[in-house]
Amino acid sequence: MSANQKLGKASVKLEKPVYIIGSASIVGTKEGQGPLGELFDMVGEDDMFGCNTWEEAESSLQKDAVYMALEKAGMRPEDISFIFAGDLLGQSIATSFGISSYEIPLLGVYGACSTCGESMTLGAMSIAGGFADKVLCVTSSHFASAEKEFRFPLEYGNQRPLSASWTVTGSGAFVLSSEADCKGRAEGGARARIAGMTIGKIVDYGLKDSMNMGACMAPSAASTLEQHFTDWNSKPEDYDKIITGDLGSVGQTVLIDLLREKGYDIASRHMDCGIEIFDAKTQDTHAGGSGCGCSAVTLSAYILKQIEEGNWKKVLFMPTGALLSKTSFNEGQSVPGISHALVLERME
Amino acid sequence: MSANQKLGKASVKLEKPVYIIGSASIVGTKEGQGPLGELFDMVGEDDMFGCNTWEEAESSLQKDAVYMALEKAGMRPEDISFIFAGDLLGQSIATSFGISSYEIPLLGVYGACSTCGESMTLGAMSIAGGFADKVLCVTSSHFASAEKEFRFPLEYGNQRPLSASWTVTGSGAFVLSSEADCKGRAEGGARARIAGMTIGKIVDYGLKDSMNMGACMAPSAASTLEQHFTDWNSKPEDYDKIITGDLGSVGQTVLIDLLREKGYDIASRHMDCGIEIFDAKTQDTHAGGSGCGCSAVTLSAYILKQIEEGNWKKVLFMPTGALLSKTSFNEGQSVPGISHALVLERME
Repeated sequence: MSANQKLGKASVKLEKPVYIIGSASIVGTKEGQGPLGELFDMVGEDDMFGCNTWEEAESSLQKDAVYMALEKAGMRPEDISFIFAGDLLGQSIATSFGISSYEIPLLGVYGACSTCGESMTLGAMSIAGGFADKVLCVTSSHFASAEKEFRFPLEYGNQRPLSASWTVTGSGAFVLSSEADCKGRAEGGARARIAGMTIGKIVDYGLKDSMNMGACMAPSAASTLEQHFTDWNSKPEDYDKIITGDLGSVGQTVLIDLLREKGYDIASRHMDCGIEIFDAKTQDTHAGGSGCGCSAVTLSAYILKQIEEGNWKKVLFMPTGALLSKTSFNEGQSVPGISHALVLERME
Repeated sequence: MSANQKLGKASVKLEKPVYIIGSASIVGTKEGQGPLGELFDMVGEDDMFGCNTWEEAESSLQKDAVYMALEKAGMRPEDISFIFAGDLLGQSIATSFGISSYEIPLLGVYGACSTCGESMTLGAMSIAGGFADKVLCVTSSHFASAEKEFRFPLEYGNQRPLSASWTVTGSGAFVLSSEADCKGRAEGGARARIAGMTIGKIVDYGLKDSMNMGACMAPSAASTLEQHFTDWNSKPEDYDKIITGDLGSVGQTVLIDLLREKGYDIASRHMDCGIEIFDAKTQDTHAGGSGCGCSAVTLSAYILKQIEEGNWKKVLFMPTGALLSKTSFNEGQSVPGISHALVLERME
């Protein structure tokens, strides 16, 4: 029998770590001009990426990210057991039309902008459970397809409040493996390892402002973090960084305040991918970046690099999702949140 | 180490079966008037289920199906490690607003109408992998919310071609467990056991007719079935029934023909939940029922009953999904399909 174990109420500790042996990040022009621009594997020349529609462009991002991640890991599609994938668009069409040509058995996930965390959680479980040797996890978002899906036509030129975030155009793909060896990398080994996960529940504080998604998602981030510290009997100081997906500057303040009320101070070690990816002052992105792609490309290009270089030895990576649709918003529903956390460790 | 194993290219064989210890089905009026009407746990008096919108009605279906499944299994929400859930609506809002009050860690899935198969596949893997003792799997669809999401306003009164299917209003929920014992059932044991799964890939024959989804999905059903027979070294005769989700009468013909070309004759043992759930002649449902709820409620109310009563000892249950959105359809994209299969066996 497996020695994997459920830890506390919502966590999983892997008997044997799962390794991230390759990853890739592809972004749009605005992301390429941001603070992390130099680190991404590919920056598009324009945000259509040679396609006819924004949705096709987003699909091509997933396709290319998977291709590059496979190449960097020295793998072919037939080496991969399953692909865990999803995106923000209705019925996940960026995924459906992006990755079908690889012909890899697909388990589609939906966790809004927490999808990167959810897909890697399920991918790691499928490997640690003995069901697969290697899996792929991929997600994407695109500024223009997301505006169309959730908000207004771009041509409308609507104003954005300062609490609004800017959906990242980008896709991040990750090859997970049961073994640390990686023939595709000169260094030989994996980029990092996954020691365990904490799976979030839906948290709904009743907030209804889809132009302030950071505040809507922060309670779920606080909930998952508190659950993580309880389940793992750990504390903020055990991590070099505690990284959220796309809370942005408003959500960050809410998260830090909520956790302080619960007795945890994460202020000195908190980082948010949405805050890192853009320079809000010069790039007019207000509260920060958001979207499934935001945490995924930041993980691939920046966070894993810091771990590889030994600057961070152990981080908690927690993409955050806002569970709304334009229908639920128009019908006056709230914007609940969900956040899934992974413990990422440096290879020794 | 776990003795779970990857079988062939796309299948998983569980070291120890996972048990379905409880399930529930809730449907709308039309389904209640159909051939399986007497078997469902609850039939709504009208399809609003006391709510203000179709989407809220669908959410309440999921909420109530989970409640009843828990009750029938003798479980409380806190006994459940994870919930695997999803639906057809954009951003899965039926799920997000349906199950949040249970506060169970959620792993959201998207597989269109294959969601029942996908959620049970992942749920069974999480138990067999040692990550959970008990999980819940739930999905839903609603005729009116689906028409709004994918087709025309109901008020428009559009005509439907004979190849079109009728989205089932219903939700099915399943409690999976590592142990066969079930304190909630007078009979004491589980309803059936899951021996393994075959995970589908996206299959796209380029068909674009969203009013003929059976034909669009049949190639994926054929692909998963052929892969299943190969991976498991099995043949159609090994199963008492081979059950698809919602191919309907047109899709059934295509599936049987496609498999015959590949050397498999399933005609005598094929059953489709979409064909069973309505009487197409008197209920004006054309090709049959469809939607995530179609296979889920049929599994809970009819298939598991046949297995329990010993009429069927081993069945292959394979929900089928059509991966389209109104955006992809309007942009002229095809309708790819995906199908996931589970091997269900009678308790001895």
